[in-house]
Amino acid sequence: MPGRSLGELARLVGGDLEGDPSLEVRGFASLESATSGDLSFVVGERNLPAAMQSAAGALLAPPGLDLAGRPAIRVAQPYAAVAAIVRVFFPEPVLAPGVHPTAHVADSARVSPGATVGAFAVVGDRSTIDDGAVLHPHVFVGVDCRVGEQSVVHPHVVLRANVSLGRRVIVHPGSVLGADGFGYVFDGQAHRKIPQVGRVVIEDDVEIGANVAVDRATLGETVIGRGTKIDNLVQIGHNTVVGANTIIVAQVGIAGSCRIGHGVVMAGQVGIADHITVGDGARLGSQAGVHRDVPAGAGMIGTPAMEGDRGLRALAAIGRLPELLKDVRALSRRLEALERRLGAEGGPAARG
Amino acid sequence: MPGRSLGELARLVGGDLEGDPSLEVRGFASLESATSGDLSFVVGERNLPAAMQSAAGALLAPPGLDLAGRPAIRVAQPYAAVAAIVRVFFPEPVLAPGVHPTAHVADSARVSPGATVGAFAVVGDRSTIDDGAVLHPHVFVGVDCRVGEQSVVHPHVVLRANVSLGRRVIVHPGSVLGADGFGYVFDGQAHRKIPQVGRVVIEDDVEIGANVAVDRATLGETVIGRGTKIDNLVQIGHNTVVGANTIIVAQVGIAGSCRIGHGVVMAGQVGIADHITVGDGARLGSQAGVHRDVPAGAGMIGTPAMEGDRGLRALAAIGRLPELLKDVRALSRRLEALERRLGAEGGPAARG
Amino acid sequence: MPGRSLGELARLVGGDLEGDPSLEVRGFASLESATSGDLSFVVGERNLPAAMQSAAGALLAPPGLDLAGRPAIRVAQPYAAVAAIVRVFFPEPVLAPGVHPTAHVADSARVSPGATVGAFAVVGDRSTIDDGAVLHPHVFVGVDCRVGEQSVVHPHVVLRANVSLGRRVIVHPGSVLGADGFGYVFDGQAHRKIPQVGRVVIEDDVEIGANVAVDRATLGETVIGRGTKIDNLVQIGHNTVVGANTIIVAQVGIAGSCRIGHGVVMAGQVGIADHITVGDGARLGSQAGVHRDVPAGAGMIGTPAMEGDRGLRALAAIGRLPELLKDVRALSRRLEALERRLGAEGGPAARG
Repeated sequence: MPGRSLGELARLVGGDLEGDPSLEVRGFASLESATSGDLSFVVGERNLPAAMQSAAGALLAPPGLDLAGRPAIRVAQPYAAVAAIVRVFFPEPVLAPGVHPTAHVADSARVSPGATVGAFAVVGDRSTIDDGAVLHPHVFVGVDCRVGEQSVVHPHVVLRANVSLGRRVIVHPGSVLGADGFGYVFDGQAHRKIPQVGRVVIEDDVEIGANVAVDRATLGETVIGRGTKIDNLVQIGHNTVVGANTIIVAQVGIAGSCRIGHGVVMAGQVGIADHITVGDGARLGSQAGVHRDVPAGAGMIGTPAMEGDRGLRALAAIGRLPELLKDVRALSRRLEALERRLGAEGGPAARG
Repeated sequence: MPGRSLGELARLVGGDLEGDPSLEVRGFASLESATSGDLSFVVGERNLPAAMQSAAGALLAPPGLDLAGRPAIRVAQPYAAVAAIVRVFFPEPVLAPGVHPTAHVADSARVSPGATVGAFAVVGDRSTIDDGAVLHPHVFVGVDCRVGEQSVVHPHVVLRANVSLGRRVIVHPGSVLGADGFGYVFDGQAHRKIPQVGRVVIEDDVEIGANVAVDRATLGETVIGRGTKIDNLVQIGHNTVVGANTIIVAQVGIAGSCRIGHGVVMAGQVGIADHITVGDGARLGSQAGVHRDVPAGAGMIGTPAMEGDRGLRALAAIGRLPELLKDVRALSRRLEALERRLGAEGGPAARG
Repeated sequence: MPGRSLGELARLVGGDLEGDPSLEVRGFASLESATSGDLSFVVGERNLPAAMQSAAGALLAPPGLDLAGRPAIRVAQPYAAVAAIVRVFFPEPVLAPGVHPTAHVADSARVSPGATVGAFAVVGDRSTIDDGAVLHPHVFVGVDCRVGEQSVVHPHVVLRANVSLGRRVIVHPGSVLGADGFGYVFDGQAHRKIPQVGRVVIEDDVEIGANVAVDRATLGETVIGRGTKIDNLVQIGHNTVVGANTIIVAQVGIAGSCRIGHGVVMAGQVGIADHITVGDGARLGSQAGVHRDVPAGAGMIGTPAMEGDRGLRALAAIGRLPELLKDVRALSRRLEALERRLGAEGGPAARG
């Protein structure tokens, strides 16, 4: 990889240059691991000590941060600039379009000539793989699926049946979209399975982590809205509809038939019971357990989930419970002593 | 798909017809998405408003629910009828028996002529695939396994070794049965692995969700009892024995050497410590953390798990802790004021 | 399998023999399932009743435990002896080295002649599979990976790209190492992906369970330290560094950029927020939620995590909250009664 000049990189990210524009940058690395040929980045005050100790030859940084005269590219949004610079030094591998000779594509499936189908991939009847889409090796696409333009499906992903991916969707390895929802009726003898025959719809620009499970609807659709990002090991139950631009962190579990709004943020290991509505822009703290509808914009923490500030105070108070129990016992004894002194009228007989 | 008459469908589910028996039904859909050619279903009062707004041409409904004269099939158990009707309009795809030419079956394995083995599936030494069983593409069956009659193993499932599936078992994509249990001895220097050489036994009519892990026993057997249903992303530790007809919802974790009874219900994200016994018919609320044996029939919630009603009140009380702390401080001040007024005898010296 | 004499087995584990050295042992089994031809084991007092009822012909046991004269091999560390004995009766299957004809190995990859590559495995460009390493069927190894000597990668594991496994590493089925970390910047319109181009480094003697996810670093490395053992369904975020000989039980979630020390023990379903440091030897109870740094050696439980003894008392106190609320209301009423009797000065006007 040939180096780039600092000036060229500054222009690329629309930043202001401080230092020699001809300075050669040979790589991009974190503050801790950068060497003198590398560009690195500072997001804010928090990283300043590490930046001062870093061997990096130049820094991406927000305006106003005092870098003691080190070569720098000043940008208002360092993380966005990081995204652009990373792709200069770590270009995405380009895959040649075409179907690998070991792949198994059904006769009734339609693979665009501009799509890539990797080794040992399977594409089922009536499924469509659109232009620029990539199925990595070992991907299983069942019947009646669609993989939209430019979508990337990583190794060992399963689209079981009736799964539709929009454009520019990314699904990381091991995720299963379209397995049966968890639905039974107990008839007094056994749990009888309710057939699960609905679909999964993943809208444009969704990203789904590794080993996630999104179940197909019983009837109708399970939907993940446009631009929503899902981390690893997340569970989404049947018939649940997630809105646009929502963030779902690792190991969250959302039961069936939920309505999750737009721009919601769920931190790790949150659990949502079935048939719950979570309003737009709500924020759920890690491990929260949600059994009631959450209004738009609310911040909830704890189990059962409580509104933000009250919840924080309540959870913090748990640690003081042993003292509180002791305090109340002491109050009771003091009160009893007073009651005894004041005689029968204030004594036990008058107690509530 | 040709339509069916309402009368024919009523007979199929053993229901009472209200309306024209010759009415043609062309599909089956949820209340929200049904059109005038569709049959839909109402489970109870809760769905009545949606039913009244639905475009559905006819409804499956329990007796007594006022449907304002709409064509209906009355059944005591609407969900059971749903299961039957779904299969009329969404028949299960029939797979031709036989071994796909790309599959890799060991010479010592025995695949019944009535079984189906999909593309890129692997069947290891001495394993048996019984009549009517289906191994979907990419399934890995290791050595000394058995897949019983009519069982369905979905893509990317791993039966590692010594795993026995009974009849009519369903395993959804990505699940791993028979990986090593988590067992080590620390010898002062390092954690030494205890070899895990036991089996996994999945009894008849069990269903296992996507990306589940059921570990093999150290010695002996890990067992999932007949008719038990397991949702996605569940962990079952080595040597654990789960009884019959138990329901285990998504992301539950059961550690090793547990004894879980029959007819137990565990809601999502429950955690069970090792060597715990959970009695028949116990019900564990979502996210409960269980560190002690649970008696048969008990309802437990919270962490550490508490018996039902008490637990509900206790968890609800957490939200009132900040006020409680304030109240106790106020009581203490009022008591001090009284004590001061009454002089030394009731003062600080007399406090508990 | 021919039997072994009790004397021979005693010598193998360096134990003291009690009974006839020529006694033939034909198998090794748990106390419950052992028959008279089997050796079994007792770990301590806890198992003594089961041992007395066991049909086992001989027992591995610690010194001093009264076995009522049954044939025994006395060893200070019964579990370590178990590990040795298991391998006598359940020898590990030996796999012939070589690349399966159906495997797909890139021209630029280097597979040692002493390595095994199973059916339908894929090895990507510039990756190296060292001597004695085993890739089971359906393993996907992406570009620029290394699998060290004697490492075993089970079916359906994905090493996405830039993943390095040390020596004697074991990765159980379905685990995904090196998927993209969960990193986005919201630009006011959408969540923009920060490219994830770093590595995953798994050091020697690490074992990773089934369906685990370890994300690649944004830049730099996500590291799992030497001898650390990870159970099933665990999530490790990007740029997190885990020390040596740490134990991470099933369904734990560790967010990004954490520093986890050596010899830490995390019980099941623990959650660690991002950028947290957990000191060496810390012990985190099951389901603990950690949002602040944990000092070395600390024992933490609960959410938010509290130091051990206090935490235990605090969690236990939750169950007494309903009574506590009642007690405080009663105290308040008694106090009011006293205040009323003592007149205006002690009445409501004087309350805090």
